[in-house]
Amino acid sequence: MFDIIPMKGGLGTVEGFYCDGVNCGMREGEQPDLAYIRSATPCDITATFTTNRFQAAPIKHYQRYEKGFQTDFFLINAKNANAMTGERGIRDIDTIFEAIGEKIELTNPVMSSTGVIGYPLPTEKIIDGFEKFDLDARNSARAAEAIMTTDRFPKELAFEVTLEDGSSFHIAGICKGAGMINPAMATMLCFIVTDADIPAAEMDLLLRESVDTSFNTISVDGDTSTNDSVFLLASRESGSYDREAFRTALDMLTHRLAMMILEDGEGANKVVAFEVSGAATKADAIKASKTLSNSLLVKTALFGEDPNWGRIASTIGASGITCDETRLVIRYEDLIVYSSDYPVLDAQREAKAAEIMKRHSYKIRCDIGVGEASHTSYGCDLSYDYVKINADYRT
Amino acid sequence: MFDIIPMKGGLGTVEGFYCDGVNCGMREGEQPDLAYIRSATPCDITATFTTNRFQAAPIKHYQRYEKGFQTDFFLINAKNANAMTGERGIRDIDTIFEAIGEKIELTNPVMSSTGVIGYPLPTEKIIDGFEKFDLDARNSARAAEAIMTTDRFPKELAFEVTLEDGSSFHIAGICKGAGMINPAMATMLCFIVTDADIPAAEMDLLLRESVDTSFNTISVDGDTSTNDSVFLLASRESGSYDREAFRTALDMLTHRLAMMILEDGEGANKVVAFEVSGAATKADAIKASKTLSNSLLVKTALFGEDPNWGRIASTIGASGITCDETRLVIRYEDLIVYSSDYPVLDAQREAKAAEIMKRHSYKIRCDIGVGEASHTSYGCDLSYDYVKINADYRT
Repeated sequence: MFDIIPMKGGLGTVEGFYCDGVNCGMREGEQPDLAYIRSATPCDITATFTTNRFQAAPIKHYQRYEKGFQTDFFLINAKNANAMTGERGIRDIDTIFEAIGEKIELTNPVMSSTGVIGYPLPTEKIIDGFEKFDLDARNSARAAEAIMTTDRFPKELAFEVTLEDGSSFHIAGICKGAGMINPAMATMLCFIVTDADIPAAEMDLLLRESVDTSFNTISVDGDTSTNDSVFLLASRESGSYDREAFRTALDMLTHRLAMMILEDGEGANKVVAFEVSGAATKADAIKASKTLSNSLLVKTALFGEDPNWGRIASTIGASGITCDETRLVIRYEDLIVYSSDYPVLDAQREAKAAEIMKRHSYKIRCDIGVGEASHTSYGCDLSYDYVKINADYRT
Repeated sequence: MFDIIPMKGGLGTVEGFYCDGVNCGMREGEQPDLAYIRSATPCDITATFTTNRFQAAPIKHYQRYEKGFQTDFFLINAKNANAMTGERGIRDIDTIFEAIGEKIELTNPVMSSTGVIGYPLPTEKIIDGFEKFDLDARNSARAAEAIMTTDRFPKELAFEVTLEDGSSFHIAGICKGAGMINPAMATMLCFIVTDADIPAAEMDLLLRESVDTSFNTISVDGDTSTNDSVFLLASRESGSYDREAFRTALDMLTHRLAMMILEDGEGANKVVAFEVSGAATKADAIKASKTLSNSLLVKTALFGEDPNWGRIASTIGASGITCDETRLVIRYEDLIVYSSDYPVLDAQREAKAAEIMKRHSYKIRCDIGVGEASHTSYGCDLSYDYVKINADYRT
């Protein structure tokens, strides 16, 4: 048994970590655009990265370190993705860390960037920005604010986990993401730190499994960026650990952060779970639920609050999975809107379906009726604001 | 050698065919919602249908006829797709043709429907509507108008083909389609008639090849409907035929009709060709160009006229094809906006790129640089109006 309690303070609640955010002049106004996360001593790190073939320079820079390396410093900037910048992009990171390394000791520092593709980093601004950091701060809120792009709100979360023996550890994360969100790794940056005494060998698998059931199940627009990264850093300072407790806390953290990203989906007003069950294979279940969460016609129907189940059925058929219209049952929450026994949605049930669609959050449940496999993906509606936000993202 | 000349009059220019459109009360107002196309004598027919697993009732009804059957009557309605209507949907078609068969002689009549999914056909209205038809009309414009759904304009086209021996034949088509357009068979209905003396055995392959290079290369929203169909009917009345001339005229007809659909893409203001070359395999070339034409981020950038080539690069990387950022070259028309030799888009070239994006129609050309394969897909921008049209389609 163990207890998991939400904490205020984000990354700052975890022993051994410091963080802050400042404005270095990449973003107009006062909002920070540069953050650091550092640990008192070098700590183990694991990460999952975008499936995009054009990985950004910071990801390539990370991959130059030997497997199993330790780090004590993370630098994160918004406004510029440092992607499609070639060898220069990697050299710029080295230049930045050489300059910072003259001020403080750095062990295998890691950079992470988000923003527009195709422009070199303003290295001078970033190096000057470092001077403004309070290196002993635990200002998680400022760090979470610094990494925002089109996000409407900063995203941070922390848990304290208490084990049966009375020992406890912490796990906390900040993330950003609002557009270019696709199940093949949501477009986002996420930094998770823990003081749990987790064995280095377990970190990678636990992170991968957790990302698969959280960030990899959400979709805002079906696009996948060049910079997506999720990092897990462990300081071990608490001396406390239990695998099941840690896994549970990590899964809660990633799932809730993923839902925050979806809540903040560009122009989105609704968060909808697409529960597919009764599919012939797991691959079919995943395919159908992801196709639903990415369909423009489904997303606009969610926005219009139109109980047009025909678009749900048509999208399942278009996904190419094994299916049969006489076995399919579609429900909005518990309300059957289609089964071959009730082919016509009468006015009463249509009104009930319309009521459900007015909710901020609900489930669309599709029983394919041909097997046992199931999968749930999460999506949002497509509004005028999505188009507005993305038509002039750079300006 | 042969001459192909565009003709006015649509389907009405082709010997042996009659057509008309009327309002039978499914659509409010005066606009027709029911059309017929008939031939003086039974003629050969071939068709390609949607890849959606839930095919609509009219497609299932068609497939009940034996391969190689002949028909002399086509009935087409808008506003109701007769899809996900089970056995009843097919029985309703039989009921309609039984009633019409009491008025005129019918040989293997074919129905085709478009509109909302999941409601039974109003068979009485359709049977009563038949009475209003002028069965000797050649009113192609009214038929083209009747099959429209969210289309902003009717789509018809006709060619006269003159061969070296002085003989000539005609080929003409009407189609509808504006949303749910995806390369895995555009969401649409298309009826092509010809009086060419084409051997029945050649019709199927020629139609398939022509659809692959026309309707299967366009994308409005990446969705695939339950009703997509392209039909080719041959009356042979001209007695004239040449395979190459016919193929050329058919390809011109389908390509131009496909472009009309894209021009009319729901809420679309621009038609953009995504030319991918230098891909490792044909499959890679198709994948990259179709992913580009379907990407929300690309489509909103087209709408915003933002020369944000980073989204093009990122989308190619996300498509999962074999690629390398040092070999990729992206051009808007002839203007290089990205190559690893010119990683930064300077102000002068950015201004030129912005000029190109103001055009109604242009090419985005991506040389992957790793092979010889190429493919072109056609797409359109995503505007506020797409969301508006689709948020409340049924109302």
